Amino acid sequence: MKSHQNMLRMMSLKHFLVISLALNVGLISKILFLGDKRVEEIYCLDNKGALGLEVSEEEAHVEKKDSSLKSSSYSFLPTTISAEDDGSIINLDHGDPTMYERYWQQMGDKTTVVISGWQLISYFSDIRKICWFLESEFANAVIRLHKQVGNALTEGRHIVVGTGSTQLFQAVLYALCPDNASEPMNVVSAAPFYSSYPLMTDYLKSGLYKWAGDAYKFRKDKPYIELVTSPNNPDGSSRKAVVNRNQGMLVHDLAYYWPQYTPISIPADHDIMLFTVSKSTGHAGTRLGWALVKDQEIAKRMTKFIELNTIGVSKDSQIRAAKILHHVADSIDHGPEYQETDNFFEFGYSLMAKRWTQLRAAVNRSNIFSLPSFPSGTCSFSGHTFESQPAFAWLKCEGEIEDCESFLRSHKILTRGGKHFGVGAEYVRISMMDRDGIFDRFAERLSTINSQVS
Amino acid sequence: MKSHQNMLRMMSLKHFLVISLALNVGLISKILFLGDKRVEEIYCLDNKGALGLEVSEEEAHVEKKDSSLKSSSYSFLPTTISAEDDGSIINLDHGDPTMYERYWQQMGDKTTVVISGWQLISYFSDIRKICWFLESEFANAVIRLHKQVGNALTEGRHIVVGTGSTQLFQAVLYALCPDNASEPMNVVSAAPFYSSYPLMTDYLKSGLYKWAGDAYKFRKDKPYIELVTSPNNPDGSSRKAVVNRNQGMLVHDLAYYWPQYTPISIPADHDIMLFTVSKSTGHAGTRLGWALVKDQEIAKRMTKFIELNTIGVSKDSQIRAAKILHHVADSIDHGPEYQETDNFFEFGYSLMAKRWTQLRAAVNRSNIFSLPSFPSGTCSFSGHTFESQPAFAWLKCEGEIEDCESFLRSHKILTRGGKHFGVGAEYVRISMMDRDGIFDRFAERLSTINSQVS
Repeated sequence: MKSHQNMLRMMSLKHFLVISLALNVGLISKILFLGDKRVEEIYCLDNKGALGLEVSEEEAHVEKKDSSLKSSSYSFLPTTISAEDDGSIINLDHGDPTMYERYWQQMGDKTTVVISGWQLISYFSDIRKICWFLESEFANAVIRLHKQVGNALTEGRHIVVGTGSTQLFQAVLYALCPDNASEPMNVVSAAPFYSSYPLMTDYLKSGLYKWAGDAYKFRKDKPYIELVTSPNNPDGSSRKAVVNRNQGMLVHDLAYYWPQYTPISIPADHDIMLFTVSKSTGHAGTRLGWALVKDQEIAKRMTKFIELNTIGVSKDSQIRAAKILHHVADSIDHGPEYQETDNFFEFGYSLMAKRWTQLRAAVNRSNIFSLPSFPSGTCSFSGHTFESQPAFAWLKCEGEIEDCESFLRSHKILTRGGKHFGVGAEYVRISMMDRDGIFDRFAERLSTINSQVS
Repeated sequence: MKSHQNMLRMMSLKHFLVISLALNVGLISKILFLGDKRVEEIYCLDNKGALGLEVSEEEAHVEKKDSSLKSSSYSFLPTTISAEDDGSIINLDHGDPTMYERYWQQMGDKTTVVISGWQLISYFSDIRKICWFLESEFANAVIRLHKQVGNALTEGRHIVVGTGSTQLFQAVLYALCPDNASEPMNVVSAAPFYSSYPLMTDYLKSGLYKWAGDAYKFRKDKPYIELVTSPNNPDGSSRKAVVNRNQGMLVHDLAYYWPQYTPISIPADHDIMLFTVSKSTGHAGTRLGWALVKDQEIAKRMTKFIELNTIGVSKDSQIRAAKILHHVADSIDHGPEYQETDNFFEFGYSLMAKRWTQLRAAVNRSNIFSLPSFPSGTCSFSGHTFESQPAFAWLKCEGEIEDCESFLRSHKILTRGGKHFGVGAEYVRISMMDRDGIFDRFAERLSTINSQVS
């Protein structure tokens, strides 16, 4: 491995000049391609989809680098971009967790995965397990990390692996809904709720379940599924179930219950808990999530859904995720190979703290924007006492600005408006997880808007 | 890389004794666990699912090896198992393409993929493409291989990548069905049809589409989607559309249109064509398929489905599949690094030819079984003139045996009965893609049954 990586490093230096030149040409051509009309298209796309499908030139620039493994020399180009605001589009609509890229680059070879052509060929991982496509290495890593962080109980739970928590969410709906019911099951979540829940629930017009909106407004005396997202996407608040009726079933989406975002209070102990590597370690491109499920029959039904939906989950991704989760655990233990500064959650915690300080400073300069405040708590994992520093900022436009998304778009800042989350247009969700250069430019531009208006 | 692999080889020799001992202990415990009651359970599972969820001891044995990357030394244990029939269960119900494992082992490091922790982090591959999560390396490999083999036209097509062709099948249904229709779209396929089509179409009770059964019996004067699988799963026949009405839309599932299974006649030129690495290269565990789509709007809708279903497709799997497909193409060109015997399709062609000869010999010994015969054709790719040698054998029990699946199960051979494919119980589908030892033992046991009965 080492010699291999060294060779790549040498290559990268050798080819640096040629490649940077090529990238610059690509960048110029993209700048020519973008314009206001294009911005309008981007907005339309955002209204339709679960994700924003556009990124700023700088992101696309780095994107291109990431998506090529053949030219490994790309990888050693810097990913941090000048914070000087050139007035280009800043897309913080989607939660692409690229802020973690820098950490993983610093770790070098520690999490490099090597897979031979003859490995992982079969559909099956362990046919004696309920989740027969779950790689044991991945399951072990999940259990180890939860024990270490203390954010969820794994004892007496079945682990179901999924192609991201998006697939697991749909697997849970399938598992909880009887297939002989006279009408579809009601699916609710307290507003503001994750903008993808309604889309993922209704896109196939299933006869098993249907989106029933804001849990606070749910009045039917019918069976229901309540999605409890804590910390909540979009607003970062700590959540509990709100309907609390006896025909209810709860699904806890704990994608953000990690110590870089919020103080860990107690290990979560719910019947169905969803997690994903996208938001815990930043590996969104790996498309991998896991569910901790108490009831064996529900775990079986979820497994059946994933069998019918995709015949299991990529084993390559499971093996890679296992290595990454084991590294995170090792970085906490910091054994001989690890230094204090390798601690993954300390990196995330410090970076989120820095960004929230920058953002609150920009917002506090005037009275046209406001942000939620969070109670302070001591993290049982890190010992830090802090206020939640969520993966998304839930920004409110005050005063005369009625449509905050349009207002920010007029300043070429792309965000996701409140209506997608079941609330008013005065709110927007802003990703806090983008690359350093993008975030710094955003904070700077927000300050400028403030000073212009106030 | 080389030094790394050599190290693993040395390790493997060193630990061979310990590991084989450990595996034998595991094997014995599993043999004790299995019995006739267990066989009954397996049968029940088969009736419910798209896949058989049980494998014979020998498979589980090798399975275990596959699913551990930590102990790389496992990998050098032989995967061919003694052909002596110990009377244990032989599971050929599912199409697990493990017969290809031996080829990939022979190729050693040639298709080893190395992914660093900081690579492929983002959700996005190329945001300027319709399929924004498609890795360009994978797209290039797909186009290169189709051009070389001549089995499908890629010009003027959009490539949509999916988590196996299973996900792409559902993406196509979503893409072709208007979301404002008064009733669900009819989905049909000529019997015998792939047993998963009805399950994948109806498991969510979608209001967009519903399974309408055998295309030969479809009489409604309504819009419909016809699935044309050629070569067909289960019976290996070459297929054309059978309904041929003006309100019809066609989806061509070409998973088996590769030169190891059937003579390539002309490049397929249809509006929507589905392929998968599972059946082309044998990498089922990678869960990767691709669609070639003429219409841009359909490609966009399919992409939207995959966004809502799993927010894209594992980039780790795409990068690995790209390397594997490029190797297959290289092995055909046989450049300096490649020998004549490295040709992937020649390996597959020869092995399938050998197995079909074994199977027909076993079947022809008596008059209780029969197999379909196929017309002879010359392959435009390989130049070989041969009769199709499908990935599945479509076996018929003749005479008094009414339930062929139960009859073979009484001999501890697990197959998938005709009723799952929309036809009679006198038929069964048998996988021809299992590991050498399993297949040899199956052929031997089938001969014995023949000689017992006749």
